Amino acid sequence: MNFLWWIPIVGGIGFLIAFILYFYVKSRPAGTEKMVEISNMIHKGAMTFLKREYSVLIFFIIAVFLLLLFGLDAYRWQTAVAFLGGAICSIFAGFLGMTAATTANVRTSWAAKIGGQALALRTAFFGGSVMGLAVASLGLIGLGIFFIFFGNTASARVLSGFAMGASSIALFARLGGGIYTKSADVGADLVGKVEAGIPEDDPRNPGVIADNVGDNVGDIAGMGADIFESYIGALVATITIAATATSSSSLNIVGNVGAYMAFPLVVAAIGLVASVLGIASMKIFERISPTAALNSATYVGSILLFVGVFFATRILDISINVFWVMLIGNLIGIAIGLLAEYYTAGKPIRDIAESSKFGAATNLITGLAVGLESVAAPVLVIAVGIWLAHTLAGLYGIGIAAVGMLATVGVTMSVDAYGPIADNAGGITEMAGLGENIRKITDKLDALGNTTAAIGKGFAIGSAALTALSLFSAFAQSAGLSTIDIKNPLVVIGLLVGGFVPYLIASMAMKAVGRAADKMIEEIRTQFREIKGLLKSKANPDVETCVDIVTSSALKEMILPGLVAILTPIIVGFLLKAEALGGMLAGATVSGVMLALFMSNSGGAWDNAKKYIEAGNFGGKGSEAHKAAVVGDTVGDPFKDTAGPSMNILIKLMSVVSLVLAPLLVHLAK
Amino acid sequence: MNFLWWIPIVGGIGFLIAFILYFYVKSRPAGTEKMVEISNMIHKGAMTFLKREYSVLIFFIIAVFLLLLFGLDAYRWQTAVAFLGGAICSIFAGFLGMTAATTANVRTSWAAKIGGQALALRTAFFGGSVMGLAVASLGLIGLGIFFIFFGNTASARVLSGFAMGASSIALFARLGGGIYTKSADVGADLVGKVEAGIPEDDPRNPGVIADNVGDNVGDIAGMGADIFESYIGALVATITIAATATSSSSLNIVGNVGAYMAFPLVVAAIGLVASVLGIASMKIFERISPTAALNSATYVGSILLFVGVFFATRILDISINVFWVMLIGNLIGIAIGLLAEYYTAGKPIRDIAESSKFGAATNLITGLAVGLESVAAPVLVIAVGIWLAHTLAGLYGIGIAAVGMLATVGVTMSVDAYGPIADNAGGITEMAGLGENIRKITDKLDALGNTTAAIGKGFAIGSAALTALSLFSAFAQSAGLSTIDIKNPLVVIGLLVGGFVPYLIASMAMKAVGRAADKMIEEIRTQFREIKGLLKSKANPDVETCVDIVTSSALKEMILPGLVAILTPIIVGFLLKAEALGGMLAGATVSGVMLALFMSNSGGAWDNAKKYIEAGNFGGKGSEAHKAAVVGDTVGDPFKDTAGPSMNILIKLMSVVSLVLAPLLVHLAK
Repeated sequence: MNFLWWIPIVGGIGFLIAFILYFYVKSRPAGTEKMVEISNMIHKGAMTFLKREYSVLIFFIIAVFLLLLFGLDAYRWQTAVAFLGGAICSIFAGFLGMTAATTANVRTSWAAKIGGQALALRTAFFGGSVMGLAVASLGLIGLGIFFIFFGNTASARVLSGFAMGASSIALFARLGGGIYTKSADVGADLVGKVEAGIPEDDPRNPGVIADNVGDNVGDIAGMGADIFESYIGALVATITIAATATSSSSLNIVGNVGAYMAFPLVVAAIGLVASVLGIASMKIFERISPTAALNSATYVGSILLFVGVFFATRILDISINVFWVMLIGNLIGIAIGLLAEYYTAGKPIRDIAESSKFGAATNLITGLAVGLESVAAPVLVIAVGIWLAHTLAGLYGIGIAAVGMLATVGVTMSVDAYGPIADNAGGITEMAGLGENIRKITDKLDALGNTTAAIGKGFAIGSAALTALSLFSAFAQSAGLSTIDIKNPLVVIGLLVGGFVPYLIASMAMKAVGRAADKMIEEIRTQFREIKGLLKSKANPDVETCVDIVTSSALKEMILPGLVAILTPIIVGFLLKAEALGGMLAGATVSGVMLALFMSNSGGAWDNAKKYIEAGNFGGKGSEAHKAAVVGDTVGDPFKDTAGPSMNILIKLMSVVSLVLAPLLVHLAK
Repeated sequence: MNFLWWIPIVGGIGFLIAFILYFYVKSRPAGTEKMVEISNMIHKGAMTFLKREYSVLIFFIIAVFLLLLFGLDAYRWQTAVAFLGGAICSIFAGFLGMTAATTANVRTSWAAKIGGQALALRTAFFGGSVMGLAVASLGLIGLGIFFIFFGNTASARVLSGFAMGASSIALFARLGGGIYTKSADVGADLVGKVEAGIPEDDPRNPGVIADNVGDNVGDIAGMGADIFESYIGALVATITIAATATSSSSLNIVGNVGAYMAFPLVVAAIGLVASVLGIASMKIFERISPTAALNSATYVGSILLFVGVFFATRILDISINVFWVMLIGNLIGIAIGLLAEYYTAGKPIRDIAESSKFGAATNLITGLAVGLESVAAPVLVIAVGIWLAHTLAGLYGIGIAAVGMLATVGVTMSVDAYGPIADNAGGITEMAGLGENIRKITDKLDALGNTTAAIGKGFAIGSAALTALSLFSAFAQSAGLSTIDIKNPLVVIGLLVGGFVPYLIASMAMKAVGRAADKMIEEIRTQFREIKGLLKSKANPDVETCVDIVTSSALKEMILPGLVAILTPIIVGFLLKAEALGGMLAGATVSGVMLALFMSNSGGAWDNAKKYIEAGNFGGKGSEAHKAAVVGDTVGDPFKDTAGPSMNILIKLMSVVSLVLAPLLVHLAK
């Protein structure tokens, strides 16, 4: 038992390092008074959103807590407490990451001024690292402690409560944050840039603070909760598969169930150590080039992980195949990332840009076609991955491949979170009037991490699909289903119902953005009309009202889709029983994975096609092609930043809810 | 055996009536010389397309014929000949329908001039009826004869060859026709209406004949092949289920397999008789109102079908539940149709129209959201339908519900085909300069059948989903699969692969439209530039070159997606074996049904949102909202007329190919 305590202890150390990095960033100078003022407004807006979001979610958390406490068949209070633990860890990770990001953004901007690119890079990256390390550490601490108490075959079901907590908070955070960021963005851009003709991030625009807050609540807090959810989901799924495995095709799990159950957490702990060393290595490589610094951090993390895991398999007497599967999982993640990179930055975006010459309609048709096409190759890669993982290490292999992709989340997420911080720094540079040169540095920083981030995205997509399948397998085993037979019409009904849920949620998310943006547009127009001298910079805009409007809208709009996601598996499970629920999960996974790729990639491609034109192609900025590309980009925004990212969480959340319900469904069927 | 001969005989009589209607239409006056000239050009263009399409497909047909002849394990030549029969019947139906439609369009236009609305209605409707009756009759004759020779449990697999012939021709026809019609439409509109500023269907536009040809090859020939495929698919699936049923949950099929196998064909024969009487009843009801005439034809057909089927179940000793299932199937079709009507003509289109006020981007976001939302309700209805049909009459019930929806295809398809004929008549009226008043009549005729057509669309969607599931069940039975277990990773791989194929095909179809439209745009621009006096009506456009360009493009572009659809099940079947192939079919059905609804409904909604604005709302024609709505409509065109309609055929074609392969896979596995 003693050795397991090392898991939360490693987590605790990681957490401490996250704090040290936070205080390092916080100790950096924040720049001019104006900058501090702007940064405080962004910080306040973001924190207000989080606080109000959590005060809405507290009711949801209490309700689910009570439902689990009184509704389950066994392990009632344990599962309910685990749910609470998962939810609190997720909230805490989001809160910490947001604090760090809103501290780092203004300091990155000032660092660019006083120290140039290298210092700005370090500030932004360490800011992102706080989030990355917090996510990994909180996961290890929380799940590790529950595992110590409930890490045997019978009680492991308690852990699914923890995952359910993490997943449900993540879905709300992604939806709320995604609706916030896009409606603020659309509103500020449409009235500011298009109607009033003032530049982006112009301080006269009443929506500009809300827009910058949106980047934080969407890209930082939303993404943090998302990745935390993935991390926990993959771990819990793999642990559950090990716990419920009676025999596995090529692994002799039966003999040492305990080792196989603990192994995912061991991998995660090694990954956290590797991440810390990767982040530290960045200080060495930053002397070569900024790109080298970002990439090397990721590579160092990965290599150390593999070395560590290799020895761990030898020490814990785990099949060497498990090690190979992790390597394969990483290769697959890279392949998916490169494919996403191709579709959102390669030839297809030049095709979209070219078709923009004929107007918005052809831009959109081409972009939709690119998005639809972009589904095939990554799904094929995932399919090959499933086959390899399963051949080498059974169902356990599919789960551990996902764990392998997510183990170095401490460093990969640092790279992910670094982008929005640099982006935000750019906004502050503009608003505070630091000048063109500083803005160029922050813009360049923003672009730097793109390829690394694309690989990270591949890991997120790949791991989501594999985790969803693992959770599905874990559910099937927990529900004692010997088969889930598509020949059974109830399973077919499940497949169809599961198939449409992602469409419904995507639709709700997109409509929500539309409604929230409308309110924003109205408010900004009113302010431009009624605040005398605003456009001449003689009066200040009322940014708080804009922030308040979009906060209220986003929080209101996130509730219904979130509830649909959680209630659907419950309704299907009780109405049509466990096997049909299995069909539903499969249908949701198929639809969800495809829609996620379609939406994310077409959105990304439209975005970059616009940038490609802005770089001077096909007439450049202001041309008819550019106008058409702006339409495409605007349509792509809710695709790639609201609806798309919700899909991955959605399918895992539905699986996790089913996993929690599984023993109860078995109990009721008796 | 004797009684079975009645099936092709009824088919023969139906065919004779189709001919009589054709000669009735042909005997009507064709109007002015100018009209005859235009109509001849359209007719010639359409026939050239068909001939060139068939001369491409002949290689495909021969190749598949040889593959079946030498590749199968048993019933080689019989299946190969059946494939040939299905393909030829499909081609013949398309050819006949097209001839009738291109004869009826000009005569409808002239009938509006000399006899007013009632005469025009009758001409257009009888023109459509030729297609409707030809489809039903050829199906009964072809399938009926093969059934007489191979209608026992062992040899029934031969019939799947017939279905494969019908389905593969249908996919090519839908793709080729869909690419043709949309690229011609986009090209003619973009250069003519937008750039040159001349009205729609203006004779100076070089693309206008191609545009009108497109309506015929897409909406008439493409749709005819599509419905023929559905009709045959539903019949073959149900017959195969009966043939391979060892026992069925609530039906005692074992006792009288023969009766249950023949019953779908009996229903179809009754349906044809009912359709003929429905069409005839139109002459009585046209005195009341044109809407009444169209609706009553459909209602009379349905009521007579049910009466006939009721007695047929009593005579043939078929469970009365089968009758109830057919009734339920029809109710479900109506419900799906009304839902489609709501999403493409109800409140959602007003939302889209309103969002157009803010520009093209919001129009598109709202339209996409509407399309995504529109998936849920009809799929839920289908799920309920599956449950009811299966509870009452087992797998057989699911098949027979689809047969029930399609049995009166003779009359429902007449209503469907009537629309494009009236539309074409409008075009001819414009080009021949018959004046505003006549154009108003044809426009009104075009709008008349909309609700009835919406119901027909519901039947098409509902029957496609049920047929796909029946074919899937038939495949599973033929392949001797006791289960298709989603817990098996190979089945999951199949699910994922099947999931992305519809996305890939949709993308290919949309890109094809883009490429073909680009060529068309270039040609029309060149003509406007180089033919002196064209815009002043002093010179004639070179319409033949436009027709030729779009014909060549469409035929070239249809090949790759068609081959992907046919080869995927073959590759998956041989590589991953029968159970994974079953998974693939399920995945393709889930993805395909959802995408079909999403694309068709968003496309339809954009179209009607534009029309709603044109009717004077939100600024009417020429307003900013209208411009935005035109963009949405243009994006929706390849969605609703090319990619969307291909989905239903695609999923059935893949199932039918698998069904043909099933015994071979069993044979190879031994």
